[in-house]
Amino acid sequence: MAIITLLTDFGLKDEYVGVLKGVILSTAPKATIVDITHGIDPQDIMGAAHALKAAYAYFPENTIHVSVVDPGVGTQRDIIAARCNGHLFLAPDNGLLAPILKVGTSVCIHRVENEQLFRHPVSRTFHGRDVFAPVAAHISKGHPLASLGAPIEQNRIQPLTTGQEPDRTRPGQIEGRVVDVDRFGNLITNIDVQDLSCFEGDRFTFNVGGYTIDGMVETYADGENDGPAALIGSRGCIEIAIYSGNASRTLKLGKGAVIGVVAHPKIKR
Amino acid sequence: MAIITLLTDFGLKDEYVGVLKGVILSTAPKATIVDITHGIDPQDIMGAAHALKAAYAYFPENTIHVSVVDPGVGTQRDIIAARCNGHLFLAPDNGLLAPILKVGTSVCIHRVENEQLFRHPVSRTFHGRDVFAPVAAHISKGHPLASLGAPIEQNRIQPLTTGQEPDRTRPGQIEGRVVDVDRFGNLITNIDVQDLSCFEGDRFTFNVGGYTIDGMVETYADGENDGPAALIGSRGCIEIAIYSGNASRTLKLGKGAVIGVVAHPKIKR
Amino acid sequence: MAIITLLTDFGLKDEYVGVLKGVILSTAPKATIVDITHGIDPQDIMGAAHALKAAYAYFPENTIHVSVVDPGVGTQRDIIAARCNGHLFLAPDNGLLAPILKVGTSVCIHRVENEQLFRHPVSRTFHGRDVFAPVAAHISKGHPLASLGAPIEQNRIQPLTTGQEPDRTRPGQIEGRVVDVDRFGNLITNIDVQDLSCFEGDRFTFNVGGYTIDGMVETYADGENDGPAALIGSRGCIEIAIYSGNASRTLKLGKGAVIGVVAHPKIKR
Repeated sequence: MAIITLLTDFGLKDEYVGVLKGVILSTAPKATIVDITHGIDPQDIMGAAHALKAAYAYFPENTIHVSVVDPGVGTQRDIIAARCNGHLFLAPDNGLLAPILKVGTSVCIHRVENEQLFRHPVSRTFHGRDVFAPVAAHISKGHPLASLGAPIEQNRIQPLTTGQEPDRTRPGQIEGRVVDVDRFGNLITNIDVQDLSCFEGDRFTFNVGGYTIDGMVETYADGENDGPAALIGSRGCIEIAIYSGNASRTLKLGKGAVIGVVAHPKIKR
Repeated sequence: MAIITLLTDFGLKDEYVGVLKGVILSTAPKATIVDITHGIDPQDIMGAAHALKAAYAYFPENTIHVSVVDPGVGTQRDIIAARCNGHLFLAPDNGLLAPILKVGTSVCIHRVENEQLFRHPVSRTFHGRDVFAPVAAHISKGHPLASLGAPIEQNRIQPLTTGQEPDRTRPGQIEGRVVDVDRFGNLITNIDVQDLSCFEGDRFTFNVGGYTIDGMVETYADGENDGPAALIGSRGCIEIAIYSGNASRTLKLGKGAVIGVVAHPKIKR
Repeated sequence: MAIITLLTDFGLKDEYVGVLKGVILSTAPKATIVDITHGIDPQDIMGAAHALKAAYAYFPENTIHVSVVDPGVGTQRDIIAARCNGHLFLAPDNGLLAPILKVGTSVCIHRVENEQLFRHPVSRTFHGRDVFAPVAAHISKGHPLASLGAPIEQNRIQPLTTGQEPDRTRPGQIEGRVVDVDRFGNLITNIDVQDLSCFEGDRFTFNVGGYTIDGMVETYADGENDGPAALIGSRGCIEIAIYSGNASRTLKLGKGAVIGVVAHPKIKR
């Protein structure tokens, strides 16, 4: 039984997501379809890329992850299918898969250009329905990636234009970005726990939007009554949170905000 | 394996949609339930009717489409079940199914009045749970429409009071309406590609809210830097869009807005 | 085939709900996962408790209901698993299950402390993913509650700190609370139809936020043109509604508002 996940910026107020599922079920009636989210901000490729990277590995191997945040729909941009880390991915070649593919293993990427697998006539405004959904359904039934189109080398796919990874070029410092603001107002950055462990120090100061936060807490509740706190969130990345509050609203910071981390050298005892 | 789709104005913040699914699964544990949308504006029958018409045909034949936008719940309005174009439909008789049934083939409509199939006691505030869900579950298990209640002739069902179809009475002109504003702010009209193809001309001017748009583009991105653009959207209907913008907010236009189309005669070459 | 329901305050804009489903399907690939709602207001334990109580019984027996509204995630609060009224429940011990367990029959409650069933490493910020989802998946595959951890007596679980039930101590009067505002703006209280039937009288006056409403209507449409109306809503509880309007916005009342009910003695005929 194949699992197909969906991640889009379609929202849930229109019929678009339902239509994707209808098309998938028309070809692959036994597929299990799971929504990762359809609440990506319109055209926010960076947000989609980091949400997908945070979610996909929690699904069983061989899950097919379909991601459609596609401001260039109907233009000459490519659609790509990739196998990476034991999962399958389908997305526009606009940076959405770049954070996953860049560090992935066993990567194999193909252009999606075999029109026999598409829904016809192919519109120029809704490739989610006419290309992504039917191709995902065919893959779930065993259609090999190699027959989708020409292979592409890993270093030829489009990077994210912003926020793909933090700047780690200055010693003892990292400069990252807020790549998502979650429902609770937590500011989620692209600085992960590996970035911190690369430092010799084990104490950190976080500078974001004029605020300075010294040290980290372990749970949201630990930050009680203390204003903004830094912690490792569920993505394994640095988050800035306010307990029972909304950090984004209180600090007036959102996606794209720059966050600097300074590591303090270990004090010898 | 039967598919049951749901389209309502219940939203997703309350337990109502979950309750519908619980009731369906209690009777039909093997049903595949798919949300078309629950984000129809409260009591917006016109929006629901056009969303359903845009979505249903992408599902496999014999799918059961349950639509509950029902300001008259508990009053004397009828609930109807219909077979049309190879699909099954369940909805209040308030215009919601009118755009589909009016142009459908192989139409067969029955009143839903066989109380043996309802959940008891039947509340007067939540027929989604007490009537629609259990009846859909029974239909999915093979219960024939004819046993639901008396047949109704196609021309006796309630029309949409507004927006069912554009006014095509003036030669060379069409006057339609915005029937939905999607998540991206695109203004979706009830003027479809067939309406345009009826004209002799192949160039069009669109008048909406004081704006005049000459000609059409093919993709959203084609409209870049050009202000509002007209194109054939994913429903096969005229949409007014602003690339990487929000046409509804920028033009200050919403559902119900009138849009006029003027066709220009073919220039002889 | 096991059904697992989810009720959280995660919202749908992030990947969190998708991640829960991925973790569940990794252990229990045949589970049917149904969202009750993810739109509980952040950290609103009272709202979650009443939504769950209103929804769970519409699912088949032996359904596993996973509820995660958990401001204390990562602290010393317990997670509990309960069997009650033929259903299974998994939630933090913070009052969320109190309204169900208090009046339930065949209640059996266990602490969830068997770390072998958790996902490792267990984060301190996302027990939904690391504890609730894998434990629910194991229960759905037949894992007995008794092996999850120590039993807890029914009277030892945490009550809701507010809104668990109305105050019925004064004769001829009830003082309840608005525990939810639904999508339509209806003010849903914790006063149920049983509370009213305890009175000798059969006519009621409702006092809420300076408004006095005499008597009740049976359907939303019955309240047409009459301002706010009281009726028995879909939860079997008193609701204050405005037909085709939004009672919460118009009356400027929300969750937590106090509502008094006065019963008038039967008039002898």
